[in-house]
Amino acid sequence: MRIILVGWGVVGQGFAQILLRRKMELVKDYGFRPRIVAVVDKEGAIIDPKGLDLEQMLSLKAEKGTISTKSKNGCLGRSALDVMESMEAEALVEVTPTNIKDGEPALSHIKTAFKTGKHVVTTNKGPLALALPALTELADYNNVQLRFSGTVGAGTPVLEFAKKCLVGDSILSIQGILNGTTNYILSEMDEKHISFQEALKDAQKLGYAEANPTMDVDGLDAAAKLVIMANWIMHKKVTLKDVKIKGIRDVTPEDLEDAAAKGSTIKLVGSIEENLKVEPTQISRHDPMAVGGALNAVTFVSEFAGEQTIIGRGAGGLETASAILRDLLDIKENIASKMIA
Amino acid sequence: MRIILVGWGVVGQGFAQILLRRKMELVKDYGFRPRIVAVVDKEGAIIDPKGLDLEQMLSLKAEKGTISTKSKNGCLGRSALDVMESMEAEALVEVTPTNIKDGEPALSHIKTAFKTGKHVVTTNKGPLALALPALTELADYNNVQLRFSGTVGAGTPVLEFAKKCLVGDSILSIQGILNGTTNYILSEMDEKHISFQEALKDAQKLGYAEANPTMDVDGLDAAAKLVIMANWIMHKKVTLKDVKIKGIRDVTPEDLEDAAAKGSTIKLVGSIEENLKVEPTQISRHDPMAVGGALNAVTFVSEFAGEQTIIGRGAGGLETASAILRDLLDIKENIASKMIA
Repeated sequence: MRIILVGWGVVGQGFAQILLRRKMELVKDYGFRPRIVAVVDKEGAIIDPKGLDLEQMLSLKAEKGTISTKSKNGCLGRSALDVMESMEAEALVEVTPTNIKDGEPALSHIKTAFKTGKHVVTTNKGPLALALPALTELADYNNVQLRFSGTVGAGTPVLEFAKKCLVGDSILSIQGILNGTTNYILSEMDEKHISFQEALKDAQKLGYAEANPTMDVDGLDAAAKLVIMANWIMHKKVTLKDVKIKGIRDVTPEDLEDAAAKGSTIKLVGSIEENLKVEPTQISRHDPMAVGGALNAVTFVSEFAGEQTIIGRGAGGLETASAILRDLLDIKENIASKMIA
Repeated sequence: MRIILVGWGVVGQGFAQILLRRKMELVKDYGFRPRIVAVVDKEGAIIDPKGLDLEQMLSLKAEKGTISTKSKNGCLGRSALDVMESMEAEALVEVTPTNIKDGEPALSHIKTAFKTGKHVVTTNKGPLALALPALTELADYNNVQLRFSGTVGAGTPVLEFAKKCLVGDSILSIQGILNGTTNYILSEMDEKHISFQEALKDAQKLGYAEANPTMDVDGLDAAAKLVIMANWIMHKKVTLKDVKIKGIRDVTPEDLEDAAAKGSTIKLVGSIEENLKVEPTQISRHDPMAVGGALNAVTFVSEFAGEQTIIGRGAGGLETASAILRDLLDIKENIASKMIA
């Protein structure tokens, strides 16, 4: 499979590392021979139709900070759209940073991939939160596949669990702690009896929260993940504007003390029932979903199999990259069964 | 698919209920048309090569306590082995009670099914704990499949999660609370500061523990599940005798208080690393696996995707029956892809 990789941050590099470490097993266990024919970052592209030397790429980035300038195959200033339109490849792996306002440039990358007949694996929540129903239709129309397991739970296979582990059953509702940053802040507020602002500052110092924390603390990141789950698992055709969102800025130490008095705590919970909503919610400390630190947790309620909760880290470059590999293997398997049918 | 169902307790009846409730969807979504051609219980069999009326079967059992005596298709005293040898069917669903001593009568049922060319889905841990490596070989030799998702976690898809959700990754180790009864007893001891004997008595009163609690409290049930996971997920060819087992009889309220002083609690943890063992283990209260009540929890450590914990009830007739349906659908899918290849 020839792959164009757009984005060369921790996830893109993590993906390259996994491919290097798993090369033999991927051939042996899955007959899978991925070949990265282009890597594109902000500065330009580096290209080799025979497949790039990933080891060299990783050291180029480490030494020079970019990949496109100094290498013999480097094309300074060449854009992802140009690469996708001019190069043959079976798949785009899109791992640029999330932009929740208009989804760009990832949205254009994905659309162009579809139009040029490429499957897409992305870890970018922006385009999906804003336009997943339309993107799914566009993929179907172009007879290609779109996968995005790394967008929810990072390495924790939340989407796969729902699709592959509850076959024959029916998922009735979903509840989850989908954002590690807010979970860290609320856990700290609860344990140390400090204010939101103090906990946020600590989280920023430790690198759990960004300088502009609005994506996390105002609930947008969790809402984006909720939209993705609602589309993929519950077949709801919704986007970000269909989610009622309330962040955690107004949660006070007193709120947490009131909850504690009832044996509960407050978490930023996203839920999919009749409607989609993200809001600070009291849950029992005995609830399996009541995890601390920066963990994520999702509970599925199914008709026959009962309630199941999956817990995992929900972040990390290598973890998220492992989801990309799973998605590519899934696409490969689907292509194989379609070719036979 | 023609199915012989052996065992007509809560799980067998739960399976019949699910088939009735899901009839249309199974055809529509999976092209799956299950037909129960025989049900066998301790008293005898009831048979119809065209497919039994499951609704009638469920009410027969409710009214008369058994199924074989009064119905026109009933064959009092007819054995499961006899039915399997004389009737055409594609699959055996084996849901008789677990016997950890010699695995019978389930072990003979399963072997006979294999020899007569039938796939097997079972929820019975006995034969698997004692002879899973041999049974796997026998199934391969007869070109049929053996599935047992309901043996670990009941409705919680622990085995499927490991097999289907971590594709391309490598599971390094597994730890789990695999027995709801002991988890209930330890949780009660911890919360109410009572002795093992008191907590056991309470559990027996509430129906969480049996009159003879040895399977649970001496760790055998957890060890059987550990053997099943080690074979299925980690490809270790082990049986019950390879597990170092220590139950919870010797855990004292003082042990739990000592653990609590360190922010921990004690759980009966089964682990698969170099070796297999089941023993009371201190774990942090912040560990996602530290669930209370009768819940089960399993943590997988994988090379790339990180640590994931799945939590679910781990018991229940309907829940376990949902695993049978998943297994049958998995077998059906495998048959289809083999026929094409």
